[in-house]
Amino acid sequence: MPIRYPNGQPYSRSPKQGQAKKSLPADTYSGRGMTLEHDIDEANVYYLNQQRAVVHKKPTPVQIVKVDYPKRSAAVIREAYFKQASTTDYNGVYRGAYIDFEAKETKNKTSFPLKNIHPHQVDHMREVSKHGGICFVLIRFFQSAEVFLLDAKHLIDYYDNQDVRKSIKKTEIERLGHQVKTGLHPPIDYLRTLDAVYFNGDAKERT
Amino acid sequence: MPIRYPNGQPYSRSPKQGQAKKSLPADTYSGRGMTLEHDIDEANVYYLNQQRAVVHKKPTPVQIVKVDYPKRSAAVIREAYFKQASTTDYNGVYRGAYIDFEAKETKNKTSFPLKNIHPHQVDHMREVSKHGGICFVLIRFFQSAEVFLLDAKHLIDYYDNQDVRKSIKKTEIERLGHQVKTGLHPPIDYLRTLDAVYFNGDAKERT
Repeated sequence: MPIRYPNGQPYSRSPKQGQAKKSLPADTYSGRGMTLEHDIDEANVYYLNQQRAVVHKKPTPVQIVKVDYPKRSAAVIREAYFKQASTTDYNGVYRGAYIDFEAKETKNKTSFPLKNIHPHQVDHMREVSKHGGICFVLIRFFQSAEVFLLDAKHLIDYYDNQDVRKSIKKTEIERLGHQVKTGLHPPIDYLRTLDAVYFNGDAKERT
Repeated sequence: MPIRYPNGQPYSRSPKQGQAKKSLPADTYSGRGMTLEHDIDEANVYYLNQQRAVVHKKPTPVQIVKVDYPKRSAAVIREAYFKQASTTDYNGVYRGAYIDFEAKETKNKTSFPLKNIHPHQVDHMREVSKHGGICFVLIRFFQSAEVFLLDAKHLIDYYDNQDVRKSIKKTEIERLGHQVKTGLHPPIDYLRTLDAVYFNGDAKERT
């Protein structure tokens, strides 16, 4: 039985979370069919091993209610609930800068529905941008497998005008955002896009 | 029954985790007797509300095994296990810089035992420092209630020489580190120390 979040989305246990600098399993040669989360985790492991950046996914926030302590074995959580995240899922350091982002996939072909982003996350993005962090969202269009980086300022602008627009058109994302190169290693090369967008195209330490 | 981690330490459910910009309960006027985690959470809420910095504690990493989906109510996690953290507990952005730290308390009066820090966390600190992040540990001596900020480079240096030293003497922490001002709002004013240590004493936006 697949594990699911309260909103019905499947819960994917990341093999990378809680581990650093592990080699990737051999069957992950292709990002095809992988979840966006998996591909970003894989990119982050690649970047860490290549000494490019330190970016991790935050653990899923859980409210723990009851824990058992069986003799001679590890503590078992017997009752806990998923909590809504108050921040974005990913953050870390790249070239000295604080980077912070959320990753979202949509099956919609022509637009990105804003309901994918929670109000708490938008507030968090506002704060991060205010304090000089690099903040953005990675959006993957499932059908075309295209990935775009959209700066938080654009997302916030659309979010604040939801009365008139419940989604961002893909053509607008293409215009305001930046397409991210996808491939094998890493599956989603978002640091390359950061170089172009936030570091004046200066590709430091590119190998 | 108090909830405990596998290592026997009590699990403290932070009221702040998963929430942002909430007002603090009235009975927290003093940090006395509060856990270090509680005091840092309170400082982080204060800093967020004062628009000084965005720093959050990462959720406790949990490996989820079994989830129930009762009708008409939220999903319940029925089997899960605590995982060892691969990174430090806190990170965020301050004045554009990536900051990353671990907080540890010791009841030892004269030294800080290195077993308080896991190898994964030291590796993470190495990586963060390498990429230009500001990385440190906040150490509270329980008996004296003194809090010190010790840059990761010193901690790593001691850690790599554990064959000869299993702990860092308090006198060494006083010499290499920086005492952090404690008080009411915030209980632990670590940004003030960051200003002095990493920003040449320039107290920007101090109110």
